[in-house]
Amino acid sequence: MKQPNPRKFRIPIAALLVVLLVSSGFVMGYKVAQEIKIEKADVQSAQKIIDLQLTDDEIEQLLPNLNRGLADVRELHEYHLDNATPPAVLFNPNIGKTNFPAQKKIEWLLPNKVEMPKDKNDLAFYTVAQLSSLIKNKKISSVELTQFFLDRLEKHGGTLEAVITITKDRALAQAKKADDLLAKGTYLGPLHGIPYGAKDLLAVPGYKTTWGAAPYKDQDRGDELATVIKKLDDAGAVLVAKLTLGALAMGDVWYGGTTKNPWNLEQGASGSSAGSASATSAGLVPFALGTETLGSIVSPSTRNGVTGLRPTFGRVSKAGAMALSWSMDKIGPIARNAFDCALVFEVIRGSDGIDLSVQDAPFNYNGKVDLSKLRVGYLKSYFDNTRNETQKKNDQQVLDELTKLGADLKPVEWVSDLPFGGMLNILSAEAAAAFDELTRSNRDSLLVRQNSGAWPNSFREARFITAVDYINANRVRYEVMQKVNELMKDYDVIISPSSGNNQLSTTNLTGHPAVVMKNGYNQNGSPTSISFIGNLYDEASILAVARAYQEATGFDEENPPLFAKK
Amino acid sequence: MKQPNPRKFRIPIAALLVVLLVSSGFVMGYKVAQEIKIEKADVQSAQKIIDLQLTDDEIEQLLPNLNRGLADVRELHEYHLDNATPPAVLFNPNIGKTNFPAQKKIEWLLPNKVEMPKDKNDLAFYTVAQLSSLIKNKKISSVELTQFFLDRLEKHGGTLEAVITITKDRALAQAKKADDLLAKGTYLGPLHGIPYGAKDLLAVPGYKTTWGAAPYKDQDRGDELATVIKKLDDAGAVLVAKLTLGALAMGDVWYGGTTKNPWNLEQGASGSSAGSASATSAGLVPFALGTETLGSIVSPSTRNGVTGLRPTFGRVSKAGAMALSWSMDKIGPIARNAFDCALVFEVIRGSDGIDLSVQDAPFNYNGKVDLSKLRVGYLKSYFDNTRNETQKKNDQQVLDELTKLGADLKPVEWVSDLPFGGMLNILSAEAAAAFDELTRSNRDSLLVRQNSGAWPNSFREARFITAVDYINANRVRYEVMQKVNELMKDYDVIISPSSGNNQLSTTNLTGHPAVVMKNGYNQNGSPTSISFIGNLYDEASILAVARAYQEATGFDEENPPLFAKK
Repeated sequence: MKQPNPRKFRIPIAALLVVLLVSSGFVMGYKVAQEIKIEKADVQSAQKIIDLQLTDDEIEQLLPNLNRGLADVRELHEYHLDNATPPAVLFNPNIGKTNFPAQKKIEWLLPNKVEMPKDKNDLAFYTVAQLSSLIKNKKISSVELTQFFLDRLEKHGGTLEAVITITKDRALAQAKKADDLLAKGTYLGPLHGIPYGAKDLLAVPGYKTTWGAAPYKDQDRGDELATVIKKLDDAGAVLVAKLTLGALAMGDVWYGGTTKNPWNLEQGASGSSAGSASATSAGLVPFALGTETLGSIVSPSTRNGVTGLRPTFGRVSKAGAMALSWSMDKIGPIARNAFDCALVFEVIRGSDGIDLSVQDAPFNYNGKVDLSKLRVGYLKSYFDNTRNETQKKNDQQVLDELTKLGADLKPVEWVSDLPFGGMLNILSAEAAAAFDELTRSNRDSLLVRQNSGAWPNSFREARFITAVDYINANRVRYEVMQKVNELMKDYDVIISPSSGNNQLSTTNLTGHPAVVMKNGYNQNGSPTSISFIGNLYDEASILAVARAYQEATGFDEENPPLFAKK
Repeated sequence: MKQPNPRKFRIPIAALLVVLLVSSGFVMGYKVAQEIKIEKADVQSAQKIIDLQLTDDEIEQLLPNLNRGLADVRELHEYHLDNATPPAVLFNPNIGKTNFPAQKKIEWLLPNKVEMPKDKNDLAFYTVAQLSSLIKNKKISSVELTQFFLDRLEKHGGTLEAVITITKDRALAQAKKADDLLAKGTYLGPLHGIPYGAKDLLAVPGYKTTWGAAPYKDQDRGDELATVIKKLDDAGAVLVAKLTLGALAMGDVWYGGTTKNPWNLEQGASGSSAGSASATSAGLVPFALGTETLGSIVSPSTRNGVTGLRPTFGRVSKAGAMALSWSMDKIGPIARNAFDCALVFEVIRGSDGIDLSVQDAPFNYNGKVDLSKLRVGYLKSYFDNTRNETQKKNDQQVLDELTKLGADLKPVEWVSDLPFGGMLNILSAEAAAAFDELTRSNRDSLLVRQNSGAWPNSFREARFITAVDYINANRVRYEVMQKVNELMKDYDVIISPSSGNNQLSTTNLTGHPAVVMKNGYNQNGSPTSISFIGNLYDEASILAVARAYQEATGFDEENPPLFAKK
């Protein structure tokens, strides 16, 4: 569908480039680069890396093209892109062309008669729902509650290495505003006056946005206000801290240290939403915002024993969030229980006209769920094959508990025999593109972690992924989306071990939502978790089942002893 | 936003791969491949091609990762993908978040008193609108009209090398159906009973779909019926022929010859919608469907002196069409004039639940356009800089004519200083991905054209485009989309020379619609053309202005002398 000789469009560009180079500061830099000549042996070497077998004749024919093409590559590399600029192609998980059901009014079933605790320290582990009742009934002001959590952050943030910036001035101003509104009779909803923390990859004017990484530790994103923060502002919530994340959203090592697990300070908090999960677990914030590309809500929620919601891809705007992988990044709440996650999700979801990947779908949360009426499956072979016996026992108990609650559990086999490695290269390539300039400028040497699995080496490795393989991995992904949707259509909820096997990779590639929650403890006393997987845009079902499970077991009410009563 | 060490997800995959290889027929093939070991010198060579400057230490750290990663690449390459499988990421030109206006009922202003010509041969150059009147008023039956064009195709198709398959049986059956319906009082609209041709990259059950290319010359796409053909079926139109295209949608050389320009049989028809433009021009069909990725409607419409509409990207479903570039392919009508294009476009546009890139937007065509009320711009420097004096004169006359018609023409400067070469690599990479297996199987050697600018070498070259550069080219493209939308918002129509400069590349990357039409002849007697560019989803304005221009000048009524009166 194009004219012959596409290169003819490039000749004027190449000519233009020469003019640009001469008239710009890049002349010296390019003088060296322009001496590069691609030879036959170079192509023979390169094709080993990309699994091609071209003949000598084919390579000979190719050489002039590749040498001419270099100018285009260099010109592209000289074009500065801000992390906030998305690609012109968008991931849309919704290939099912279904019409969305209507949004019903949610009956929140909030507690009404909550009292202040005898020991004020116990407020640290009150749920959002409980704090909401206290605020609404004026048993505590938002300013007092905010100050309480600011104090907790000051006192324990250092121990946990979980806090990057305490947003004290903004927090107290927002809290006062919430109190003033309430005094005038305006109540904005369940998050009115409730403090919270945000992973420090969300931009907030007046505060640095560090992405947890040394090269960006003083980054000023100017007027950029992340849409999720704005939505929480509008709902009356109070941002008290920007929390740690593993540098550039991997792991728990950030430029200032390693975030700790409140259940075991010898252990890292896992990541990359390290500070969000650790701080919530230790009662430094009632809830926090995390993000996940491949396990970054699930993994720290597991380790720190809190409840995480990874929403459907494209449910929550990522405007103002650091982009790692445009087609896989998701923002979600980390809280004490699934009900709190629902309260937060209701506020942060929805389009903003900036992040064009967001689809507006309803959220029909129903707290009075009847498990006998839901179609619940479980990934039988994943449960059977779990090697850690404690984890296996804890997971099995979840199935027993759900059965007791009335669920008729059906065994399900997950998708398999797919080129997952090639598909996860989608994430690697997008991340390397997002940090293209970091790699080429060598400023990646500022990052703390420099080992073979760390970002600098990963970004370099990902530069050898070809566009053809990236595109075709996205075509395989399309088929995987079809397969998973086909499998999910017979279920409302699928129960899965949180890690191991391919569920986590698959659902992060297809954009399906998950709730992860504590289901016991492992041998060393750290929490273990279970995951509930839902259909696209149906966070309501998995949150309701998760809440029913938590109400039956109470794991969500057990807090890390080191941080209780302190 | 991911857990540390993404590679840990790959170890089970790699292990699985070994099992798969042993249990499959690929063991022998891979034995050779598995001996490949990427060495330092290979990376040093490869990075020359992709404009990277890694240090020796960096390369040393990278080597184990690249060697491990090879298994993922090979596994992906072994996964078979049909051309019909799209990527999970979609191009959406509509970044402007505007609400679409409502669809109004179109007043078509069709001619009412059309008579049969004295010389029946003159039917060959009747417009769709005229033929429509004849059918509706029963002055000719669809079967008779269809037989007339079947005869024309038989008689002249060979001379022009423009026809791949005459779909005679289907055509006569459809024509009879149209006549029967009309006899019963059911009139399906302006295309009822009207014959047409389709570029042979559209699937129609019962007929081969050749993509113009030897490796696919006997391809049976089974039950696949292209959505555009189905929509035309439903509107009563009659497919009479599958027309040539340059092999795999480039140029005018197909597996059986070179399609000719009816104005000058010494000259090729240009492409890639070669047969569609040539056959329409020579009166072998009243209209045809073409496709454009980068000039493939514009260029042959110019050469053969017909009118082509390249709709907004995502206006017309591509289901059942050969994919060349998922983010750039567009399907549009090629006809005698802009009004006929509007009639066809009204039928083929709209979503089908298969091609998820299609957005439903209104088409408010208004044949009574008042040019003094439209905001019309022209790309002044492009007009000034046209080198061919005849073309320049013809183009200038368009501006004069539009001024006479009441337009207040404003000079506009198009976007510039952008890495177009890098952005056009988007097309190259997507095409190479679509034909990945063709390249790797060496069946590309079956293609007729094998020179440096032909597909086989282009596909090979494009395999060296990195995913990082592909993704970032798409990010630059996003900025270009913003720039072009910003520029276009002050205009309803922008007049541009059809070729040269960056307008054609830009609008094909941004997805803006264009109408191209004859505006005179060049020195050798072949037609020249002018292009009218519109806002996203506003095909109505450019078609109306184009029609006004044609009514004033009559260029659209001049037909190639060699094929008139024959």
